[in-house]
Amino acid sequence: MNQSEQLSNTANDQLHDLTSPLLQQVIDAWIELKTQQPLVHIMTNTVASNYVANILLAAGASPAMIDNPFEAESFASIASAINLNLGTPTSEQMQAMQIAAQTAQNLGKIWVLDPVGYGAVLKWRSDMADLLLQYQPTVIRGNASEISALAGNQIQAKGVDSTVSSESIYLQAQPLFEHTECIAISGESDFILSKELNAVIQINGGSYLQPKITASGCALGALTAAYCSVSSTITAGTMAAHIHFAIAGKKAYARANTAGSFNVAFLDEIYSLNEEDFRQYSDFCILPL
Amino acid sequence: MNQSEQLSNTANDQLHDLTSPLLQQVIDAWIELKTQQPLVHIMTNTVASNYVANILLAAGASPAMIDNPFEAESFASIASAINLNLGTPTSEQMQAMQIAAQTAQNLGKIWVLDPVGYGAVLKWRSDMADLLLQYQPTVIRGNASEISALAGNQIQAKGVDSTVSSESIYLQAQPLFEHTECIAISGESDFILSKELNAVIQINGGSYLQPKITASGCALGALTAAYCSVSSTITAGTMAAHIHFAIAGKKAYARANTAGSFNVAFLDEIYSLNEEDFRQYSDFCILPL
Amino acid sequence: MNQSEQLSNTANDQLHDLTSPLLQQVIDAWIELKTQQPLVHIMTNTVASNYVANILLAAGASPAMIDNPFEAESFASIASAINLNLGTPTSEQMQAMQIAAQTAQNLGKIWVLDPVGYGAVLKWRSDMADLLLQYQPTVIRGNASEISALAGNQIQAKGVDSTVSSESIYLQAQPLFEHTECIAISGESDFILSKELNAVIQINGGSYLQPKITASGCALGALTAAYCSVSSTITAGTMAAHIHFAIAGKKAYARANTAGSFNVAFLDEIYSLNEEDFRQYSDFCILPL
Repeated sequence: MNQSEQLSNTANDQLHDLTSPLLQQVIDAWIELKTQQPLVHIMTNTVASNYVANILLAAGASPAMIDNPFEAESFASIASAINLNLGTPTSEQMQAMQIAAQTAQNLGKIWVLDPVGYGAVLKWRSDMADLLLQYQPTVIRGNASEISALAGNQIQAKGVDSTVSSESIYLQAQPLFEHTECIAISGESDFILSKELNAVIQINGGSYLQPKITASGCALGALTAAYCSVSSTITAGTMAAHIHFAIAGKKAYARANTAGSFNVAFLDEIYSLNEEDFRQYSDFCILPL
Repeated sequence: MNQSEQLSNTANDQLHDLTSPLLQQVIDAWIELKTQQPLVHIMTNTVASNYVANILLAAGASPAMIDNPFEAESFASIASAINLNLGTPTSEQMQAMQIAAQTAQNLGKIWVLDPVGYGAVLKWRSDMADLLLQYQPTVIRGNASEISALAGNQIQAKGVDSTVSSESIYLQAQPLFEHTECIAISGESDFILSKELNAVIQINGGSYLQPKITASGCALGALTAAYCSVSSTITAGTMAAHIHFAIAGKKAYARANTAGSFNVAFLDEIYSLNEEDFRQYSDFCILPL
Repeated sequence: MNQSEQLSNTANDQLHDLTSPLLQQVIDAWIELKTQQPLVHIMTNTVASNYVANILLAAGASPAMIDNPFEAESFASIASAINLNLGTPTSEQMQAMQIAAQTAQNLGKIWVLDPVGYGAVLKWRSDMADLLLQYQPTVIRGNASEISALAGNQIQAKGVDSTVSSESIYLQAQPLFEHTECIAISGESDFILSKELNAVIQINGGSYLQPKITASGCALGALTAAYCSVSSTITAGTMAAHIHFAIAGKKAYARANTAGSFNVAFLDEIYSLNEEDFRQYSDFCILPL
């Protein structure tokens, strides 16, 4: 074992020791979500809006879709967290997003950026995502194609779906730490890059049916905003949202393995999840960056 | 017993005598809804639109979401009823709403206003709601926070969710009779203020899961419009929509007590409700104002 | 038997001989859809967007709702097929649709027009539908009222629902062959007019509950676009989408006969359909035009 391997092992051990405390923070965040029912200001796409609202209500948060430029500042000012999703932008929504992001930064509010479809083909939204980075999103959440492209890599997505795996690109995402504390990349496993811990957390679970239900990524972004507004750290809040989804997806699939029934079961499991589930089914590991 | 108590008792007795005839009017309205399948012109928010359409189809109405200013007048002119919902307004929708409300008033059409999120924080839509009042909505429907604020009280909502109970504010809503014949306040119990009867009807039922499903209030507003276009009186139509919801919610919860399954069961029950259910499960009382 | 009857019988026999090869083409299209997962560029209405995306994902396609004028050209250029649906147009969507249709025509891409609500009452969208015809949609899909009106007949729809049967109007639709190769009219039975075969294909199946679920026509239009991008002929692709729906509707109804449960079961059946189902349950006949 050479010196570099020894250092790495020490880092691994230290991170491994974080597993229990992080799980406790995740559970605490879940309890706080149920208790505080934080108001989440959401600007999302027309495909996702109903689903996102139902997921947040089921989880215990209080979602409100306010996406016009005339109310963006006043509503962002009273919300506990903000989620901006670039799925189907309109000119008015674009104005509203910039106002909300600026308000969030000015007031030190939690806000989550979801750069849906980021890449060369969808330039209008991609330019807006670049612009929104200057308002320092608390968390950036997307699929592997989006995050990789946002971090400056040349990548070709398939529409709004990813063509690469989360595992293969998470190291490419680190330049985004210039703009954010936390980067969440969803996929077969989810990878959460934490500036605070200088580590990446790999979260397993979910179901291969999840990408067959539209807008689950969008809902995850909004839930991340909700959790981060009540958690002790941004890392724990982001983890809590992703673990909540991973366990609900796994349990839903055990009950229902076709698209329609899975969709219903997933919302049931998001609603029903309890502390015991978190302790029993959380499946994550922490790796050094 | 003093004279004032005697008067009140007399009023109570007279109102109590209305229970059976009102229930019959409600059932008649339900039969007419199934028979006439009234065309309802709906402008609603992006969160609610799919759900509202499915609820109305299940109940027997024919919904059509037409929300641009270029077709608002011609479509309002042929619709049986109109429902304007301020959930996620755009500039074009705002124009369209004003045109539709004006058309409704000019042609003496049933129209229902749902002032989602009314209050100081969401000024743009609140100004529009104030403006729309001049076109004399047939029914105003909202949660307790919205109705109280619309009636001129200082109240703080939590986003688009209410922070006060329907029971505690219904007396505050009476100034709205200047603009409308009927005010429906949804909550744990619903309260319908009828100018015609000079009474308030309290409707019990539903499920505590209902607020966990987004857009059920929005769907209730649209269904109220549908019912009022076929009922003998506005009071009976508004009651019919609320009782239809209350029974369906109660029956759905008996079958399914988690968010996703409840959502599906609720649509099933809206569809399946029959005359027997109305007679068996209607739970309302009439109180003097 | 006179000469004319003999000719007609010969035509009937020749068309009847097409039944087996057409079914094989339909099955081949279904296999290709699962394999290629074509990217479908969709501009649709706010009522339908979530449902349409879920149906396409369940069937195996990759939907993306991109409906702003700033990204319409670049995205249409990379998509395998395009679906333009006039359900709830906005000014920006209208611009985007024209750009996408023009791009489709320039690049020889499959594109499907769904003229929701076409008729005298909804003039703004109807003018746009007329305009879009010049870009030669590959397929025009609608209900009987819409298709009849688009073909120049005086007809009165009820909002966005049809007031006439598909069977009664399909002969009126033939003038649309000036603009398209294929016309699909949905209803109790679906009728697909094929310029290639100079025939109409009648497809049976589905369920009377289908019109009780909003946006199933919209989803069928988008699925038609998906199928046509992978099928050997436009006729086979259009048939495949309609047969996929007809079988899924029939099987779903056998499991669930109320609106909410049917909705879930239908998505399940869209997802689960297999080659055996196509061979067992396809129910169509081919008639001369």
